[in-house]
Amino acid sequence: MTTLRDTGEFGFIDRVTRQLGSRPDVVVGPGDDCAVVRAGDRVLLVTCDLSMESVHFRRGVVSPKEIGWKAAAAGLSDIAAMGGQPLFLITSVAAPADTDADELAEMCAGIAEAAEACGAAVIGGDVTRSPKEIVLDVTAIGEAPGGRYVLRSGAKAGDLFAVTGFPGRAAAGLDAQEQQLDLPELIRAHYHPVPRVREGQWLAAQPAVHALIDISDGPVQDGRHVAAQSGLGIAFTSASVAVDPPIADASIQTGKSIPDYVLFGGEAYELGFAVDPKEAGRVFKEFRAQFDLPVFALGQFSGAHGGVLVDGLPPAEGGFQHFL
Amino acid sequence: MTTLRDTGEFGFIDRVTRQLGSRPDVVVGPGDDCAVVRAGDRVLLVTCDLSMESVHFRRGVVSPKEIGWKAAAAGLSDIAAMGGQPLFLITSVAAPADTDADELAEMCAGIAEAAEACGAAVIGGDVTRSPKEIVLDVTAIGEAPGGRYVLRSGAKAGDLFAVTGFPGRAAAGLDAQEQQLDLPELIRAHYHPVPRVREGQWLAAQPAVHALIDISDGPVQDGRHVAAQSGLGIAFTSASVAVDPPIADASIQTGKSIPDYVLFGGEAYELGFAVDPKEAGRVFKEFRAQFDLPVFALGQFSGAHGGVLVDGLPPAEGGFQHFL
Repeated sequence: MTTLRDTGEFGFIDRVTRQLGSRPDVVVGPGDDCAVVRAGDRVLLVTCDLSMESVHFRRGVVSPKEIGWKAAAAGLSDIAAMGGQPLFLITSVAAPADTDADELAEMCAGIAEAAEACGAAVIGGDVTRSPKEIVLDVTAIGEAPGGRYVLRSGAKAGDLFAVTGFPGRAAAGLDAQEQQLDLPELIRAHYHPVPRVREGQWLAAQPAVHALIDISDGPVQDGRHVAAQSGLGIAFTSASVAVDPPIADASIQTGKSIPDYVLFGGEAYELGFAVDPKEAGRVFKEFRAQFDLPVFALGQFSGAHGGVLVDGLPPAEGGFQHFL
Repeated sequence: MTTLRDTGEFGFIDRVTRQLGSRPDVVVGPGDDCAVVRAGDRVLLVTCDLSMESVHFRRGVVSPKEIGWKAAAAGLSDIAAMGGQPLFLITSVAAPADTDADELAEMCAGIAEAAEACGAAVIGGDVTRSPKEIVLDVTAIGEAPGGRYVLRSGAKAGDLFAVTGFPGRAAAGLDAQEQQLDLPELIRAHYHPVPRVREGQWLAAQPAVHALIDISDGPVQDGRHVAAQSGLGIAFTSASVAVDPPIADASIQTGKSIPDYVLFGGEAYELGFAVDPKEAGRVFKEFRAQFDLPVFALGQFSGAHGGVLVDGLPPAEGGFQHFL
């Protein structure tokens, strides 16, 4: 018997998606941050993310509202990672009959808050019974403004791979929470990620930006996805990692290196993008002026090798993948 | 502490939906079979249904493909229950790492088959880990042809409540399967429900059809929803139940009455509709000619009483509701 542990998350997805049918109005099927479909004169983006208790979240550690917020942020960030505007969320909730209704209602309120923070609305859902764990599954529907969206597959050899904001903070925040360190800014980064919706739309409007993804599995893993889908390799340089003071604080206390957090840390919900190296300086400068947010290059795409290199070597750690 | 068992499924939904924000392009929010939204020149219908192992399905009893088919049929039927055309499905799958990848891939193939049978395509999804149970959550997006859809809330006093096809077969099929009775037609009705997509579109195009719903919780429960959302009461007459030979077979072997199956049996995925009594005869005749499928009245809406009556009395059994 071949199990999911054998196939891995991505192997299983590859297998299942090969057997799917299509329709003429499906522009992009499985394999990117969102599916892209046409509905009359509009281009819509659709994605879903399932959050499972004891896998994706633990109750009692953070507030129920933050659990809901984070469950919704994943899909909202996927819309941002196409350069889209989130419009509608629909949510399935499964929970045991003895679940505190107040606690579950707070989780739902957190989903609605994240939606509103991104200009979207919760339009419906399903509530059903679960034997043990609470499940929150959020489907997000967005729009590509003017029909424009950016895929993962457009990176060109020589493009820089740049990342917005504060990659690594969410991963350091998870360690901080588990080791009960007094680093509230990092813990908040883990549980209250803010999808980069305006930033994604701005990046998608730049002709120099060739590919876009959100950093849910860590920059190395997500850079690898962009490289593979663009038929390229990617090389990261740990020396390029800027020192982010809160991550430096965490690094001292946990013993994990700053580049480990920044290059491999998942659930950042920052945006990663491939940008023309000749235009990168201008794009970074204008981005910082527009959003008062850091942006910096972590790697570079290459046609001379496949796969991913970190400081010239294949990385020991591959980034997060379910079932492995 | 107030639990979900205290609030019930519908009490919890009422509570959560009261706190939701909206957008101008949300035409109908939570409370009907689907949410209704505008996207440019189109009217879209959106719904989601979560299927949980050991709550909604058991492995080993039917094929993995049928489990997937049924998980998708729920949402496809919700689109049919607005008079819509299903377009796109997106699916979240959660499963333990030691799950047989072949078995799970078959479930996904069943979802894709149900989609294709209704003219829709699976456009993406999420695959993630679960501690124990397999979870399949399917979001369906459909279109209201020509912008036309029918809500639950349009029933008028005096309208008949009619049901398509074979209500009660799915419920009798569940008993047949659990009691290992040799009634394959009923077991198939339970595990392979065919969403009434063309039938729903046809009904929605009839001016005499004032309200539409799918029979997922049983005709009495779903008729109660239509009545309540239309500000009416509804009275059922068990004498109006036509004898369906396979259900009669099951009734003899299980000891449950035919009206119990037909009036209270859930998961039928037939359509229930409110129809002008003066036009009902013509509508039924044309429907039967068009689809070679039974259709008959089970009850009547009334402005003279609230709630639901079966043979003049409030029913002891209320139809299926989670957590109760």
